Amino acid sequence: MAKYVYTFGAGKAEGSTKMKNLLGGKGANLAEMSSIGVPVPAGFTITTEVCTAYYDNNKQYPTSLKGDVAKAIAATEKLMGKKFGDAKDPLLLSVRSGARVSMPGMMDTVLNLGLNDTTVQGLIKSTSNERLGWDSYRRFVEMFSNVVKGIDRHKFEAALEAAKNAKGVELDTELEAADLKKVVAEFKAIYKKELGEEFPNEPLEQLWQGISAVFNSWETPRAKTYRKLNGIPGNWGTAVNVQSMVFGNMGDDSATGVAFTRDPATGNNAFFYGEYLINAQGEDVVAGIRTPQEITLLGSREWAKNSGLSEGDRKAKFPSLEEIMPRQFKELDAIRVKLEKHYTDMQDIEFTIQQGKLWMLQTRTGKRTAAAAIKIAVDMVAEKLINKKEAIMRLDPNALDQLLHPVFDEDEKKKANVLAKGLPASPGAATGQVVFNADTAEAWAADEKKVILVRLETSPDDIHGMHAAEGILTARGGMTSHAAVVARGMGTCCVAGCGELSIDYKTKTFKAKGMTVKEGDWISLDGSTGQVIEGQVPTKSPELTGDFGTYMGWADELRTMGVRTNADTPHDSEVARNFGAEGIGLTRTEHMFFDPQRILAMQEMILAEDLEGREKALEKLLPYQREDFVGIFTAMTGLPVTIRALDPPLHEFLPHTEDAQKELAKASGVSLDKIKARLAYLHESNPMLGHRGCRLGTAYPEITAMQARAIFEAACECKKKNIDAKPEVMIPLISTMEELANQREVVIATAEKVFAEQGVKVDYLVGTMIELPRAALLADKVATVADFFSFGTNDLTQTTFGLSRDDAGKFLPMYVEKGILPHDPFQVLDQAGVGQLVEMATVKGRSTKKNLKVGICGEHGGEPSSVEFCHRIGLSYVSCSPYRVPIARLSAAQAAIRDKRK
Amino acid sequence: MAKYVYTFGAGKAEGSTKMKNLLGGKGANLAEMSSIGVPVPAGFTITTEVCTAYYDNNKQYPTSLKGDVAKAIAATEKLMGKKFGDAKDPLLLSVRSGARVSMPGMMDTVLNLGLNDTTVQGLIKSTSNERLGWDSYRRFVEMFSNVVKGIDRHKFEAALEAAKNAKGVELDTELEAADLKKVVAEFKAIYKKELGEEFPNEPLEQLWQGISAVFNSWETPRAKTYRKLNGIPGNWGTAVNVQSMVFGNMGDDSATGVAFTRDPATGNNAFFYGEYLINAQGEDVVAGIRTPQEITLLGSREWAKNSGLSEGDRKAKFPSLEEIMPRQFKELDAIRVKLEKHYTDMQDIEFTIQQGKLWMLQTRTGKRTAAAAIKIAVDMVAEKLINKKEAIMRLDPNALDQLLHPVFDEDEKKKANVLAKGLPASPGAATGQVVFNADTAEAWAADEKKVILVRLETSPDDIHGMHAAEGILTARGGMTSHAAVVARGMGTCCVAGCGELSIDYKTKTFKAKGMTVKEGDWISLDGSTGQVIEGQVPTKSPELTGDFGTYMGWADELRTMGVRTNADTPHDSEVARNFGAEGIGLTRTEHMFFDPQRILAMQEMILAEDLEGREKALEKLLPYQREDFVGIFTAMTGLPVTIRALDPPLHEFLPHTEDAQKELAKASGVSLDKIKARLAYLHESNPMLGHRGCRLGTAYPEITAMQARAIFEAACECKKKNIDAKPEVMIPLISTMEELANQREVVIATAEKVFAEQGVKVDYLVGTMIELPRAALLADKVATVADFFSFGTNDLTQTTFGLSRDDAGKFLPMYVEKGILPHDPFQVLDQAGVGQLVEMATVKGRSTKKNLKVGICGEHGGEPSSVEFCHRIGLSYVSCSPYRVPIARLSAAQAAIRDKRK
Repeated sequence: MAKYVYTFGAGKAEGSTKMKNLLGGKGANLAEMSSIGVPVPAGFTITTEVCTAYYDNNKQYPTSLKGDVAKAIAATEKLMGKKFGDAKDPLLLSVRSGARVSMPGMMDTVLNLGLNDTTVQGLIKSTSNERLGWDSYRRFVEMFSNVVKGIDRHKFEAALEAAKNAKGVELDTELEAADLKKVVAEFKAIYKKELGEEFPNEPLEQLWQGISAVFNSWETPRAKTYRKLNGIPGNWGTAVNVQSMVFGNMGDDSATGVAFTRDPATGNNAFFYGEYLINAQGEDVVAGIRTPQEITLLGSREWAKNSGLSEGDRKAKFPSLEEIMPRQFKELDAIRVKLEKHYTDMQDIEFTIQQGKLWMLQTRTGKRTAAAAIKIAVDMVAEKLINKKEAIMRLDPNALDQLLHPVFDEDEKKKANVLAKGLPASPGAATGQVVFNADTAEAWAADEKKVILVRLETSPDDIHGMHAAEGILTARGGMTSHAAVVARGMGTCCVAGCGELSIDYKTKTFKAKGMTVKEGDWISLDGSTGQVIEGQVPTKSPELTGDFGTYMGWADELRTMGVRTNADTPHDSEVARNFGAEGIGLTRTEHMFFDPQRILAMQEMILAEDLEGREKALEKLLPYQREDFVGIFTAMTGLPVTIRALDPPLHEFLPHTEDAQKELAKASGVSLDKIKARLAYLHESNPMLGHRGCRLGTAYPEITAMQARAIFEAACECKKKNIDAKPEVMIPLISTMEELANQREVVIATAEKVFAEQGVKVDYLVGTMIELPRAALLADKVATVADFFSFGTNDLTQTTFGLSRDDAGKFLPMYVEKGILPHDPFQVLDQAGVGQLVEMATVKGRSTKKNLKVGICGEHGGEPSSVEFCHRIGLSYVSCSPYRVPIARLSAAQAAIRDKRK
Repeated sequence: MAKYVYTFGAGKAEGSTKMKNLLGGKGANLAEMSSIGVPVPAGFTITTEVCTAYYDNNKQYPTSLKGDVAKAIAATEKLMGKKFGDAKDPLLLSVRSGARVSMPGMMDTVLNLGLNDTTVQGLIKSTSNERLGWDSYRRFVEMFSNVVKGIDRHKFEAALEAAKNAKGVELDTELEAADLKKVVAEFKAIYKKELGEEFPNEPLEQLWQGISAVFNSWETPRAKTYRKLNGIPGNWGTAVNVQSMVFGNMGDDSATGVAFTRDPATGNNAFFYGEYLINAQGEDVVAGIRTPQEITLLGSREWAKNSGLSEGDRKAKFPSLEEIMPRQFKELDAIRVKLEKHYTDMQDIEFTIQQGKLWMLQTRTGKRTAAAAIKIAVDMVAEKLINKKEAIMRLDPNALDQLLHPVFDEDEKKKANVLAKGLPASPGAATGQVVFNADTAEAWAADEKKVILVRLETSPDDIHGMHAAEGILTARGGMTSHAAVVARGMGTCCVAGCGELSIDYKTKTFKAKGMTVKEGDWISLDGSTGQVIEGQVPTKSPELTGDFGTYMGWADELRTMGVRTNADTPHDSEVARNFGAEGIGLTRTEHMFFDPQRILAMQEMILAEDLEGREKALEKLLPYQREDFVGIFTAMTGLPVTIRALDPPLHEFLPHTEDAQKELAKASGVSLDKIKARLAYLHESNPMLGHRGCRLGTAYPEITAMQARAIFEAACECKKKNIDAKPEVMIPLISTMEELANQREVVIATAEKVFAEQGVKVDYLVGTMIELPRAALLADKVATVADFFSFGTNDLTQTTFGLSRDDAGKFLPMYVEKGILPHDPFQVLDQAGVGQLVEMATVKGRSTKKNLKVGICGEHGGEPSSVEFCHRIGLSYVSCSPYRVPIARLSAAQAAIRDKRK
């Protein structure tokens, strides 16, 4: 019979950190902590298998579960020296969810479980604290009603508000025991009114309803949304952690707090990074209602400085834990070191001090910014906690995006009007239009608008809007508030707890510094300083040095696959080279023709009646193209530069409005009628599958010849200036060897002519894009006339799926939602289908030409799982947009490490 | 050293019929005939390898060739007892081309080679016929000048015409020796004027120029066109046949003729089918200048009857060879039997009788109509010349097209006005607009017009126009004229030698029965009766019985692969069933929605705002669909019927003109703005790769459900009427298993619902089209949820090549011309690429589901080489348009035979 329940407590545990899949992350860590001697309130974990069985079996539990839980309660009672439901000194329990991976805010929690009119008296008696008893009771009733029974939380808050108003006080803490006792009665009345039944008095009944509430919350829409966004399978399930309650709200010798073992925003290891509240429950710290205090003195002083608080005020109003409870702080700090050593990673912990005794409630790997992740990894290598390979595996390559996107131009920012300052909750710069709710954020973002989501505080219901936003701004909550934690995880810029803001949801405005900002107005956020800025502030490229350089250097040491960039201009080439690109995998030449100076010559070429006319127009384009290539070769000196011949259908270069056509008629001397006739002739039903790519060069070899001439003249010019140009000419869209052979001949003939004219020779390659299924299927033949392959996975995805990228937006999201496709195949390479062709073509190509250079230049070249695939099948390099080059480098290194481990 | 020259003559030969590739068809047959004792004028063949070497080596001959030819001339001289260039009794030679396959009219010929001012006297002396001498000489000079030197033939004709005018005579034969001698002088003067050099006197010089002319003619544009149209590789080359001249124009004891051993139009074996002319050269018979006479008495009498000639007139003016030269006829008839027995096929022969002695100049497999081919094959099996398998291999499946196309509705034809009657040169019925030259024919046909090409007589220069025409009508020439032979080969209807026509190229009119027909007027031709009919005559489907039935029965016995049809209506289903279809492989349901009664409901469905609105509109469509399916199931009772779910994108069903949109707004009650907005929303950049196929059914399962309901309600209704409906529901355009699983569920759920409602059950399958590369690549997965596969090779070709069928017309012909593609892949399945996917998917599909039914329903299902491929890879069936079903049956049988022979 399966073991469904695992106990822990008092230095022992049935589970361990290796059992994450079974016990969830939280449960496994509670067991692990208990095992290594960290003081953990005793309790037990109901496994994720129960969750799966529960859903598989029409929400019925395995029959043996009831008995197992009873035994576990007995064990817990023994360890804690209290009895569940005891009238004198009752054991109270918390019930929490815990999936394999942390899903912040997604799963509901019930605290203080086991209280009723009898046990509350026992609690009062055993703690000699009447107020605590009733306060715990009213919290429990509210939480149970809301989480387990789905009664609107606001109904309880209103009742509490009314009680405070009646007494003329402002804070919950100003309510006394008698007041709270009344509140409990009112809460129970609300419960009865809403559900038509009495609040359950029986502790075991409460517990089972609590357990079911956790399991049921696994399938709430918001949990499903989070799973969808994060690629978490629904069948993983959640575990349930049932743990003895400890109280941070038993008076001024009690406290509760959350902390990271290092700074999750910067990675700094200078001080213990965390917050606490005296006489509070854990919920109070993260809910952002009271402003939490720093744990360390150092941290507290820095916080005070940032908040403009005097040292006197700080010490009086917001002292650090280190100052108030030095013994417990020391114990906590020792646990911090112990946990980091044990887990060899930065931890996110929760603790409670109950009447002077420290209890650890949770430890888990802490979420962090990319910058922090790099610093922590580099530091831990120096501290010999981990090695380089482990360091490289620690970072999600996508997280690098945070570091690579532009930051504000500091000069521009200096001129800007700072409206307010909040907490620098998630670094980066963001500019967008203000919206005040998640739905609007999502809708506007769908219309390609950039939005900043502004909220009093955020909740899990806002996840979709947070995802859609460029940046998040909240008026309440600290560095560990929901908004801050989630934003860091997403890599989205966030300013939190900006109390200066006065937000009015009704009028969709906020006020700051006397200024009113309306929905749709532009603001900018600096997530690294906490500044809220009026209007749009220009951004600039980030500079990457120090730890980033060290870290990426390790990645380069460890990876075996090359990383190039897709770049069409000398500027992009330089940016990419600074990001570590080892050459260009794709230069698209067509963008060069849209320049106003050039487009007319291009149009003349298209309108020409014969070869002579076309050649005349092409001659005008030649010097421009040559100049482009000189610039790119110069930026990439010593590195290979792959240049693709003209690709798009010719009609793309002709104007489509009557006015523009008239202008063209005037400029070119070709009649309007003829221009229209030419456009009508060139019109295509499916331009994606039309007269483009090498089909143009085959029909008009003079175009290929002009481009080849520009490339080789530029390369010769460079060589004369001691610039090492390494051109690789790439023929697009071939479906058969003969097309490539035909175009190759044109390129080689041109090269020889140019070399003879210039008296200089340069090495070059002629290869092809593999972007049509037929080219992949016949790659062994194609390789006979190709010096290299480069997979154009965008078009290959289009043709393999029979899916137009321009049109798929109407139904592809529905496909992902229904689970028909696991991802958008234009974002994540479809390894099963498109990847099968890529692998087949690589194998076939190399069966003919053993050392064939094979790369990829589609969008997928910068997507981590796709890069890993490319490594696995032995590609020579991936090529991606400049800003994704570091992501590709790291992904390639991780792929190489995984590969070796196998 | 390679042997370049093969001699033959006097019952011996160095070559044989097995050496067709080396000696060409004509050369191999001359050798073979000589070997089996048929009297053949001695000569020799220069191999096709010389042609290839000639072109490979910059038009230089192998060095040993000169000596080999000299030796062969000496051998020929010995056998014929004459000397080449002899002043007393000169040996004269013919030089002809001869490729592996017959290319009628494509290659030029030079006769009477070896004549000069000296040898002509020898010829006169040895034949005692001065006129023959000078006539032969003037023919030689003209032919040599034209063929070898490219001088316009009309220049010589004009000179001859002038000579006749000067003498006041009409016919060439009325010119006497002295006249012809002057003509020779004039011809030589023309030659000198045109080329600035003397006519070559030296016989060996003449011979080598003649040989080169043959080789050069291999690469003339018209030869290349023919090769392109017939798929003949350019590197086959042609052989050159040099043969002793014999003369049919040595007086009334001489004659020349051409004949088929059986009737090439009908296959009839009742009499020797051929024509001859007394005192004429071979060119005269096929040129159509003199009306040739029949060889047999029986044939002559029938011809006279058809021509309205009395027996007296016939015997006096056009007697048969059988009557005039009974001894030679008997010898010829014996040779006929000998040749047919030897070659076991109908032969096309040329002969000459020189002063009473019969010489065979050529034998080759005779071209024939499809009807004749079938009759000959069936007869020869009965005659035990061949067996059934050989019979089945004898016919080009494409030729069946001739039999399968409609013929005139006889009742309608009776009412029509017959303008004239010519020879029934190539059977079938044709209706079209009159054009008078090949270029116009081609241009009009490109504009989708049906044209009838009307010419005095045709020449190889007209090939492209003949190809473009529905029918061909000539005023001159017999059953073996260029027009007749070529038209039969093409399967194009032809009426030849219609002397009643008076054609005027200048005014682009012809007159007949006092009526003037202009360019663009409609006429109809009956190629089986020779009738030329005014206006358009309606046609009806052909009836196929007798030999055709026997023959196709053998094909069915021998083939192992099934043949189905693509049919969307009960009528098409019946036609196809009559043609032998064993079920339907593709019923497209979308055509059904375009009916005016239905389109509005379809449009309402597309415009509906929600599921309810769509379902309401779909309910209106349901009864129509059900009715369609009842009709089709009834026509196909007992046979499987594959029905494809809705495939095209929805925008295809909405009107695209403003007027039509306004009408729709009125009819549907939806505002014009909304209709336009919907159209704008539905617009696609690449509709071929857009929201269509199963992507519609996945987005709107209610459409699939309605169609499934119509299918199963129809099937149940049929079952209740004892009609055996076998529906196979086909989901189009899947790219992943999950799409099929999703749609399959909808179909099965609907089927179960309908069966429960109807109280009746029918067997059915749910399968899918494999028409996207990804579906083929993942066919093993797809097969887990598919009862069958059907390859949609049209779309699979589009996506595998990345080629839009609608747009490829602009460059695909250029691709075929440049040899980048061997064929248009939409006509002939691309076995290397698309076929690779088809084979892969078949193997993978059956790796999961061993007995998976796999078919093909693209246009390729009726194309012989594609059908053969389908057999080879083990498909269960091919499906094609009704009229191509017999072609597919025959192709499948041939594939099975070839397969077994391996």
